[in-house]
Amino acid sequence: MLAFEVTAQCPHSRARTGRLTTAHGSVETPLFMPVGTKGTVRGILPDDLERSGARMLLANTFHLSLRPGHETVERLGGLHGLMGWNGPILTDSGGYQVFSLSHLTTVDEDGATLRSIVDGSPVRLTPERVMEIQRGLGPDVAMAFDHCPPDPHDRDGVGAATDRTHRWLARCVRAWRDNGAAERGQALFGIVQGGAFEDLRRASVESALEHDLPGYAIGGVSVGEDRPAMLAAVEAAAPLLPDSKPRYLMGVGTPLDFLDAIERGIDMFDCVTPTRHGRNHQAFTSEGRVNLRNVAWRDDTARLDDDCNCAACTQFSRGALRHLCKSGEMLGGILVSIHNLTFFQRLLSDIRAAIAAGTLPTLRARCARAQRGVRER
Amino acid sequence: MLAFEVTAQCPHSRARTGRLTTAHGSVETPLFMPVGTKGTVRGILPDDLERSGARMLLANTFHLSLRPGHETVERLGGLHGLMGWNGPILTDSGGYQVFSLSHLTTVDEDGATLRSIVDGSPVRLTPERVMEIQRGLGPDVAMAFDHCPPDPHDRDGVGAATDRTHRWLARCVRAWRDNGAAERGQALFGIVQGGAFEDLRRASVESALEHDLPGYAIGGVSVGEDRPAMLAAVEAAAPLLPDSKPRYLMGVGTPLDFLDAIERGIDMFDCVTPTRHGRNHQAFTSEGRVNLRNVAWRDDTARLDDDCNCAACTQFSRGALRHLCKSGEMLGGILVSIHNLTFFQRLLSDIRAAIAAGTLPTLRARCARAQRGVRER
Repeated sequence: MLAFEVTAQCPHSRARTGRLTTAHGSVETPLFMPVGTKGTVRGILPDDLERSGARMLLANTFHLSLRPGHETVERLGGLHGLMGWNGPILTDSGGYQVFSLSHLTTVDEDGATLRSIVDGSPVRLTPERVMEIQRGLGPDVAMAFDHCPPDPHDRDGVGAATDRTHRWLARCVRAWRDNGAAERGQALFGIVQGGAFEDLRRASVESALEHDLPGYAIGGVSVGEDRPAMLAAVEAAAPLLPDSKPRYLMGVGTPLDFLDAIERGIDMFDCVTPTRHGRNHQAFTSEGRVNLRNVAWRDDTARLDDDCNCAACTQFSRGALRHLCKSGEMLGGILVSIHNLTFFQRLLSDIRAAIAAGTLPTLRARCARAQRGVRER
Repeated sequence: MLAFEVTAQCPHSRARTGRLTTAHGSVETPLFMPVGTKGTVRGILPDDLERSGARMLLANTFHLSLRPGHETVERLGGLHGLMGWNGPILTDSGGYQVFSLSHLTTVDEDGATLRSIVDGSPVRLTPERVMEIQRGLGPDVAMAFDHCPPDPHDRDGVGAATDRTHRWLARCVRAWRDNGAAERGQALFGIVQGGAFEDLRRASVESALEHDLPGYAIGGVSVGEDRPAMLAAVEAAAPLLPDSKPRYLMGVGTPLDFLDAIERGIDMFDCVTPTRHGRNHQAFTSEGRVNLRNVAWRDDTARLDDDCNCAACTQFSRGALRHLCKSGEMLGGILVSIHNLTFFQRLLSDIRAAIAAGTLPTLRARCARAQRGVRER
C-alpha cells in the first residue's frame, strides 16, 4: 500500500532523501505538503498547485467530516475527486483540532467531544470513528487519532495524554484493519506524543513501534512551544524511529525549521504558513520576508524574487502586487500564496539536491543569511 | 494605431465578423471583454484569462485613477504591466461612474465632481483630465468622457446630457491629439448617448461622426432600462455608424443580449456578468443557468457543463463545486468565474463561426432553448 526507500544519506547529518510510493504515485522526500483544510488549498487551482512543485497534499478530517461529510466526499470520488487532485493525499486525524479547539472540547478515555465549527452542535470523535471517516475520505495516508495535550510542559497532563494516545493507537490500528481501509490501500501512520519530556517521547516511540506501521509522525509540536523545545522533541524521538519508515513532523513550519528537522532525520512536513502568510500579503523570498503592503514597493518595477519563476514573479512587479494587496483584491493574496508555495517547494527541492550532493551545510548557510536579511519595511 | 476590417457578413442580419488590430495584437470580433475594474479580473490569473479565450480586457479609469493612481500605473509599465496582460486593453472613461455614483456626483458644463470611493474626498473629472489619466494608464483604446444621464426616459435630462457629451467629445479629441496619447498609438472611441429617444440617438451619432475616430460606442444602455428599450437604442444608432469602424455596446450583457446586438451590427461588448455571477456561484451553462449552492448537486458527480473544457468542468464535479461554494471557500467563486468566462468566450467564438458559415439563426435557436431551460433549482 505504501513503500518508502531511502535514496541518499547526508554525510554531515541524519538528513536523507527518499521516495514515498502510494496508490497515487511516488513523491520525493524530504517533502512539504500544502494544507487544504476544507478540501482546497485556499484560492489555488490544482494546476497551480502542481506548477508550484507540490506533489502531495494534506486535508483535515475534522473539517471535512462536518462539511460536506465523509459520506458525501466518498460519493464524490473521495478526496481525490473532491479536490481535483490525482497525486497522493494525507489526512490528519482531528487530534490537532482537539488541541486547537480545546476550549470547545472534552476528552475522556473513549474519545473526545468537540463543537461543530459549522453549527455548534456536539461532534463525537473516537479512534474508531476517526478511522471510519478517513476510510470514507480516502486519502493515501491516514493519521491515527491522538491526544495532543494542551501544555507540553505539564508532566501529568502530557503523561496521561501520551498514555491515552497509545491506547487509542491500538484501537486505530484495529479499526483500520477491520473497516477495510487497509485493504483499500490506505496507509496508517502512528503519532508520537510526549510533550517536552525526553523520557515520555522515548516511551511514546517505543509504544508506537509495537505496531508495525507504514510510517510515524511526531505530534504535539508547533503548539506554541519555543524553537529549542520543538527541536528537543524531534531529537528525542526521531533517532528511535526506524530508518526504513518515513518520519513526519506535523504542523511545521518555516524554512529554517525544515533544515533543523531534516538534519535530525525528518522526511515530511505540512504547514499553513505559505498560504496563510500569502493571504496576509507576506512573501517568503530568497532575500528574506517581504511585506507586500509596504509603500516602499509602490512604484517598484522589480520582480518579487529574482530566483522564482512563479506567476507572481514572472507576470507582476512588486508595485503591481502591492496595488492588488492594498486594494483588497483577492488576486493579491492568491499570487503571494502561489509565490510562497513555490518558494517552499523550491527550498525542499534544493534541500533534496544538497543532501544528495553532500552540500547541505552550504545551503543552510545561505538560508540563514536570507533569514537575517528579513525585510519588514 | 488601430485598424479594423470586416472579415465576413452574415447573410441573415447585420451581424459581421471582423479583426481589430492594436499595438498589442489582433482580436477577432464580435468580441467580449472581461472587466478588470481595479486592474484585475477578480480572482483570475492572466494565464487563466487567456485559457478562457479572452483576448482583450477592460479596466476602469475612475477606480484606477484613485488607486494606485495613473502616475503609478504609468511607472509600473502602464495597465499592461500592472495587469500582467500583453493583449489589447480598453479603458472606460469614468462616465459610467458619474451615472452609477450619481448620488455622490455633481455635473456642470466643465466636468463632474465625484466622491472618492477610497476616502470620500472630492475628485474632479473633466474631458481633459480623463484623457490625461487614460494617456497614463496606457490602454490600446481609450473612451471619451461622456455624460450618461440618470433617466433615459427624461427627454430634457437626456437632451442636455447628450449635447454636453458632444461638447465633451470635442474637448476629448483635442486633448487626445495634444497630450501625446494619439501619437503613442492609443485609439479614442467616441460614445453615442440619446437615452430612449430615437431622434436624440440619431443626432448623437451624427455629432460623434463629425470626428473621424477609430471606433464608436453606444452608451447609456444597461442603466436599468428594459430589454426592448436597450434594443431600440441599438437599432436607432448602430445602422448609422460606419461599417468600416468597430461598434461597441457598453456594459452588455447576457448571451441573448449578445445575439440581439450582434444581429444589429455590434462588434464589441464588456460586462461584469461572468465574474460577478461567478462569485455568487451562478453558472451559465449550455443547458441554462445553474445555482451551485443548490442541495440538488450535493452528491452529483456530473460535470458542470458537458460542452466545456475549463478547469471547473474538467477537474471538479458539481458536488465538489457545491462544497467549495457552500463552505465559503474562495476557490468556489474563482472556478465558477473561470467557467462563466470560458462559457462567454466560447459563445462568442461560436457566434463568429456561425456568422461566417451563415448559420447564425440556428445558433440563436439553440441559445434560446438553453435560456428557456433555465435551472434555478
